[in-house]
Amino acid sequence: MLHYGQMVLRPELDENSEVPLYRQLGVYLQRRIETGEISPGDRLPPTRELAGQLGLNRTTVSAAYELLESDGWIKGAVGRGNFVRGLPERDSDPVNWSRLLTPSNAAASASPGRSGTINFSASRPSEKLFPVDEFRQACAEVLTSDRLRPLLQIGSPSGYEPLKQFLLRRTPEASGSDGILITNGCQQAIDLLRRALLRPGAKVALEEPVYPGLKNLFLEAGVELVGMSVGPDGIEPHSLRQALERGAKLIVLTPSFQNPTGASIPVAARKQIVAMARAAGAVIVENDIYSELDYAGRALPRLKSLDPNVILLGSFSKIAFPGMRCGWIIAPKPVIARVTELKQLADLHTDQLSQAFLLRFAESGRLAAHQARMVAAGREKLRAVEESARRHLFGCRYRLPEGGMNMWVELPDGLDSSSLRGLAQQAGVDFLPGRYFSVTRPFDSGLRLSFAGLEPDEIRRGVEILGEVIRNAAGSRDEASRPAFAMV
Amino acid sequence: MLHYGQMVLRPELDENSEVPLYRQLGVYLQRRIETGEISPGDRLPPTRELAGQLGLNRTTVSAAYELLESDGWIKGAVGRGNFVRGLPERDSDPVNWSRLLTPSNAAASASPGRSGTINFSASRPSEKLFPVDEFRQACAEVLTSDRLRPLLQIGSPSGYEPLKQFLLRRTPEASGSDGILITNGCQQAIDLLRRALLRPGAKVALEEPVYPGLKNLFLEAGVELVGMSVGPDGIEPHSLRQALERGAKLIVLTPSFQNPTGASIPVAARKQIVAMARAAGAVIVENDIYSELDYAGRALPRLKSLDPNVILLGSFSKIAFPGMRCGWIIAPKPVIARVTELKQLADLHTDQLSQAFLLRFAESGRLAAHQARMVAAGREKLRAVEESARRHLFGCRYRLPEGGMNMWVELPDGLDSSSLRGLAQQAGVDFLPGRYFSVTRPFDSGLRLSFAGLEPDEIRRGVEILGEVIRNAAGSRDEASRPAFAMV
Repeated sequence: MLHYGQMVLRPELDENSEVPLYRQLGVYLQRRIETGEISPGDRLPPTRELAGQLGLNRTTVSAAYELLESDGWIKGAVGRGNFVRGLPERDSDPVNWSRLLTPSNAAASASPGRSGTINFSASRPSEKLFPVDEFRQACAEVLTSDRLRPLLQIGSPSGYEPLKQFLLRRTPEASGSDGILITNGCQQAIDLLRRALLRPGAKVALEEPVYPGLKNLFLEAGVELVGMSVGPDGIEPHSLRQALERGAKLIVLTPSFQNPTGASIPVAARKQIVAMARAAGAVIVENDIYSELDYAGRALPRLKSLDPNVILLGSFSKIAFPGMRCGWIIAPKPVIARVTELKQLADLHTDQLSQAFLLRFAESGRLAAHQARMVAAGREKLRAVEESARRHLFGCRYRLPEGGMNMWVELPDGLDSSSLRGLAQQAGVDFLPGRYFSVTRPFDSGLRLSFAGLEPDEIRRGVEILGEVIRNAAGSRDEASRPAFAMV
Repeated sequence: MLHYGQMVLRPELDENSEVPLYRQLGVYLQRRIETGEISPGDRLPPTRELAGQLGLNRTTVSAAYELLESDGWIKGAVGRGNFVRGLPERDSDPVNWSRLLTPSNAAASASPGRSGTINFSASRPSEKLFPVDEFRQACAEVLTSDRLRPLLQIGSPSGYEPLKQFLLRRTPEASGSDGILITNGCQQAIDLLRRALLRPGAKVALEEPVYPGLKNLFLEAGVELVGMSVGPDGIEPHSLRQALERGAKLIVLTPSFQNPTGASIPVAARKQIVAMARAAGAVIVENDIYSELDYAGRALPRLKSLDPNVILLGSFSKIAFPGMRCGWIIAPKPVIARVTELKQLADLHTDQLSQAFLLRFAESGRLAAHQARMVAAGREKLRAVEESARRHLFGCRYRLPEGGMNMWVELPDGLDSSSLRGLAQQAGVDFLPGRYFSVTRPFDSGLRLSFAGLEPDEIRRGVEILGEVIRNAAGSRDEASRPAFAMV
């Protein structure tokens, strides 16, 4: 036992141990520091003295001190001995997080509308249509089954096997060379595909206007964006050609009822598009989340049916429940292998319970029944859009969509949709102005009317109010008195 | 009406339209091509002839043809006229996906054990302990409530507000300057923090050995990894110092019951570590997923309690249900703002129903009751590890953990854990060899025993079998007859 100042040092060292003596001594001293028996600022005994007291070779003590010093526990001062370090002073400056954090590339997102406003700004289904009782029943069937216990255990990165099989059977375009990955919604599907298919400096072609979540995801990744202009018939083939000529290797398309325009690509142009992409060696991602909200019953063929190399994305978010984050990728197996690997790194796997609930909801026929109601309701809403737009949107240009949730409106020349928004909000109507959907061009004169979340009466009243706001803003100019113009 | 060969061209053109005549004509011709009325290979009428027949200016027809050509519908052949394009020949070569896909940096993951095997390879709770009835009850309480309908709607990127508030209240280290983000499990939390805090070429310091999901995530991102060696007391402060000297700006630590070693960092070293990181301007991410499985009741302080700038990660995956992907980040508000933005881009938000189920399970007291049972069961399992390791793991070195799910075992000199694994599997036992947990060093002589998923009897039998396999592999060498050695 050695007293040194206030210190009592009584190491039990074992010469027969595999652990060298200097390390045993170092660990012993470290423990005394940890427990506070030796305090910051205390001086340790000189090596010669401690060696003598403990019957050790002086080099053993020196080596123990060196270990402590290299581990940061003590600090040697030449000629003065070895001192136990205090913890460094707490830095009184706050951490400069804005310097540490990576910069945001994302554009501002839309602010929510005020209550009482007729809100055309959200592309989402109406909560009123949620089949809550049927969903409860489907959940109960899962929760009371024997499947519950394994569902609560860690799952497969590629998704819940019965759901995967159900979705593949439900997708006639899926062939034997395709696989499937369940994702945390289609947004994640695109994020994973970005990581799987884009190297640094790569170019991606996006529709323009396009929904901001898609654009921001690629902006954030530092990828170069190429815009393809969307007309009344979806992307114009010449703009795909230009994008391919500029070297875009990934083409993200929403061929049916595109967000924000509501436009759909006709069948012949679909064939042209897949052929052009294929010839250029580019990969098409078909974001197919609206096609089942088909109010006109035209059932346009998916791009995936025209070229098996197309990567198809699906989800129940638009036809059922957006709050349940469950989407999927159907693609050639090498693609699925890579995105599954990336999925595992991103978040291990998608929530298992939600996958099982959605499967039960779908396979029991409840989803199809709900979808039929959604299509019937959507048709009625679209009729309300059509009638009220014709009566009230003087001087505007628009093409009535045949499905989905959105319609694009071009304001009379000279009107700016961002400025108009403030006036519309004061009048009790909200929408998203064109600039939210920009990729490379501004779209200042356009705006998106998302009608699916509203009731037909609200749509009629909202479009009427919007029409008044537009007429007032356009003032007494000639344009404002022209009849509504449906774009060809 | 114009017949041209088999073609019947009867456009209805409107001179008063805002759409120029050439574009109206172009759209008309495009539609005829789309519908198949004009076939690939057909020659269009010469511009002069069509202009004459339709009473148009010849430049109007030329402009329409140019539009069609730029859109890819027709192709002009000098001196021969304009022909409708066929779709390009389908490329008969299959797409070369291996060239298109980004290369995988991830190491191979562990293959699942054969059935009948005593499987020490998975760091997860036992399904047998899942409180399925209590969980069912919590789900039913959510499903039958009025909250269900809004839960099915799109949610907030930052998470379900009542769950966020509950978790902040439950975390004494969270201060008023902290915010919270709900993630799709802790794996996603780290992926988002990586994107928020690491610029290209940045360095991240990881414990070594470390669990492969963490290493692979950073490898995939092309970040430079710096290993910090983990000893019986967690990372050694000197290796943190070296990592900081090498420029690591992000330090990811599991201070309590680390995976794979089971090691915990003593309190004084915790203080040292946060001070060193703070002084170097580096950010610590505290991956705190095991600390509540505290079998010894030591309740070591979280790093977050020692420095408010620490970013704290939590999850119920280890104490409750791994299949429900729900974790969280508690961090200073600027960090939360940035990761929330990235979360929205990654997958909009975490599944709402699961968030509500877990909240109900926790706030009703069921989680705490379950956790108490998990700790009691874990203590029993650990005792089985202790007894059987002492009796059977001759020549091995290990430190018994005080919590969590894993213990690290160093084999006698010269034994390679990867080779041993095959022998162990033949004998009916599986584990993960050290090389799975490598960052920069191989760990060929180490292995991880994950005991939490097994029953005490299985643990005893498994460790006994493993001990025999080790003894046989070590042969008649002296080392094999030494008693087990518990590392200091």
